[in-house]
Amino acid sequence: MQEYIDFIRSLYPDKGALPLHEPAFGKMEEELVVDCVRSTFVSTVGKYVDEMERMVVDFTGIPYAVAIVNGTQALYLALLLAGVKAGDLVITQSLSFVATSNAIRYCGADPAFVDVDNNTMGLSPESLREFLGGCQRDANGWTHIASGRRIAAIVPMHTLGHVCQIGEIARIARESDIPLVEDAAESLGSREGETHTGSHGIMGTLSFNGNKVITTGGGGMIVTSNEALAKKAKHLSTTAKVPHPYEFMHDSVGYNFRMPNLNAALGVAQMRRLPSLLEGQRYVADQYREFFAGRSDVTFFTGRDGLGSTSNFWLNCLLFEDLPARNAFLEMTNKQKMFTRAMWKPLHTLPMFFECPRTDVPVTMDFYNRAVHCPATVPGRFVIEA
Amino acid sequence: MQEYIDFIRSLYPDKGALPLHEPAFGKMEEELVVDCVRSTFVSTVGKYVDEMERMVVDFTGIPYAVAIVNGTQALYLALLLAGVKAGDLVITQSLSFVATSNAIRYCGADPAFVDVDNNTMGLSPESLREFLGGCQRDANGWTHIASGRRIAAIVPMHTLGHVCQIGEIARIARESDIPLVEDAAESLGSREGETHTGSHGIMGTLSFNGNKVITTGGGGMIVTSNEALAKKAKHLSTTAKVPHPYEFMHDSVGYNFRMPNLNAALGVAQMRRLPSLLEGQRYVADQYREFFAGRSDVTFFTGRDGLGSTSNFWLNCLLFEDLPARNAFLEMTNKQKMFTRAMWKPLHTLPMFFECPRTDVPVTMDFYNRAVHCPATVPGRFVIEA
Repeated sequence: MQEYIDFIRSLYPDKGALPLHEPAFGKMEEELVVDCVRSTFVSTVGKYVDEMERMVVDFTGIPYAVAIVNGTQALYLALLLAGVKAGDLVITQSLSFVATSNAIRYCGADPAFVDVDNNTMGLSPESLREFLGGCQRDANGWTHIASGRRIAAIVPMHTLGHVCQIGEIARIARESDIPLVEDAAESLGSREGETHTGSHGIMGTLSFNGNKVITTGGGGMIVTSNEALAKKAKHLSTTAKVPHPYEFMHDSVGYNFRMPNLNAALGVAQMRRLPSLLEGQRYVADQYREFFAGRSDVTFFTGRDGLGSTSNFWLNCLLFEDLPARNAFLEMTNKQKMFTRAMWKPLHTLPMFFECPRTDVPVTMDFYNRAVHCPATVPGRFVIEA
Repeated sequence: MQEYIDFIRSLYPDKGALPLHEPAFGKMEEELVVDCVRSTFVSTVGKYVDEMERMVVDFTGIPYAVAIVNGTQALYLALLLAGVKAGDLVITQSLSFVATSNAIRYCGADPAFVDVDNNTMGLSPESLREFLGGCQRDANGWTHIASGRRIAAIVPMHTLGHVCQIGEIARIARESDIPLVEDAAESLGSREGETHTGSHGIMGTLSFNGNKVITTGGGGMIVTSNEALAKKAKHLSTTAKVPHPYEFMHDSVGYNFRMPNLNAALGVAQMRRLPSLLEGQRYVADQYREFFAGRSDVTFFTGRDGLGSTSNFWLNCLLFEDLPARNAFLEMTNKQKMFTRAMWKPLHTLPMFFECPRTDVPVTMDFYNRAVHCPATVPGRFVIEA
């Protein structure tokens, strides 16, 4: 396994400790945050929020974007707007970062877990159909028979930036008339055909946390083709204040969820270099793909990249033969200050989600037992100034 | 009234449009945000969060501080930690920014509104006693008789930075054994005797929004003397992750509520100049106090400042004779680009809180009808470099 470690290290000849992912900044980021501080508009008002929203619209081709304080709150607000209510169930995958299911719980709802599929690591359409087989539809929508609870939404997540079977999932959601909200926190730059992730349901959500392809420190976004939903997201994320020159009137329970202008200033600089950063992510992934091709003891996971979809390769994922091999690699790398990570502990095994309804999830457990998240930091030469 | 406008303008001879409050930045803020960007630690990890927490502990004398993404989420998390549950009532004042009651609603609880008192604009101990008179106590705590709902907490707010009757309120809370959480969003620098606001109950919360005495763009903090609560606040605000070198395990529903390091970098610079900014706030308030002394048609509100407590005079508040006079001043000032504001519409009159239990609130309505929030921006000469 030392050979694998040496290979990964060879991609970053200048680095000692090697993080899983690291922001790529240059002069432009410094200039824009300084400009923002000088303007004094660092908070709830300022041009950078608007500019970053426009840039995300241009890049993704999704007509509306609403900047939010982070990706978790973006998903929470999107679920509220999708009509998720206390007591509901929201179908999602067990193989995800905990934020996906936390956001569901913030609504007072529970996740209902289905499996992921082998080809994508994302929500499995077959498993989704299996779960819906235990539900019945009437004039009021879908009810989970065993629990008597309403099915309020379907939330697939594009794991590590690999596009799930979103076309098939969107078809099931449409035919079932269940709102589809795409958790695209990890998939900025990932597309199904030419269509950006986050655009297949009624809303999608992005994350700009420090470990993502681009970062605003903390930040996220709701993207949607629905103008009314976008307006409502903006209204609710800015305390639901009714415009007035000097009176403070709010027409519903609102949220302090707007991305501060300071963070958006960093985000504008990051959006400018996004195409170059995605090239860098792909360059690194291509090196992994070539190096690990044809090996029998380890597989580099590439999802459906090049097979109808494009992955952003946010993190690079190696699949080992079994849990002992995966653990051995995790131990070796971390001892050598190469900070690899295991796959997230499947959410249905966490104490707060243990009793949530679910299908069998053998593929989820197989990925958890065998996967290691490996460094995908963009090499310095891709961090060009705009 | 033009005389009053001319006076306020005279405090800022260099300014055209005059905002209600404006951040005070210098080279130090630019240097620290640039240092933060260069470090690449702009997000969930980094030294500035720890440093800002230490500085708030030193400044307030409150033993523990946990940096949060904004003041609203800080209050929400504090209420969760205080044990507020769905269906509960939380006693608070109707005269507050909407965030106070929104945070209560996020818990699934409802605000129960009491009046403010004439001397402080903060929660009235008499009105609190009146409300508790309609409640009964048994082994499980307090129940509001009319609704049958549990009283889970008391949340006073130090309006515009004037310290409420917090000693008396804390005594009632202690005797009643109801958790006291202080909303000190507006009162950084305000003290009861020598004791900083936010330290009288089990937890207090601060805000560093762009309109506050100091700002982190968006940000807030939970302060407490209780180490266990502080540790739990840190754990829950950082996704409740259990420490492990490479496994992702979370032991409860957690939140992505940590203040990003980028915002904390700005906050560290702001904390360094806080004493000087508070001097500036006081200088401006002193000018108001002198100018408006002895006038019959308008009063400059000073709370109990100098009478056992110290106000930070976050915003300066003029009280006119009646609603028409207040409206006339609001119209005149805003037309002349002096951006004064009315007092927040009392929360019990907003549609989402209209049916919440409450006492009569005549003082709240009187303040709302007569108060105008006036500029309190710190003059440039107080913005010295450290």
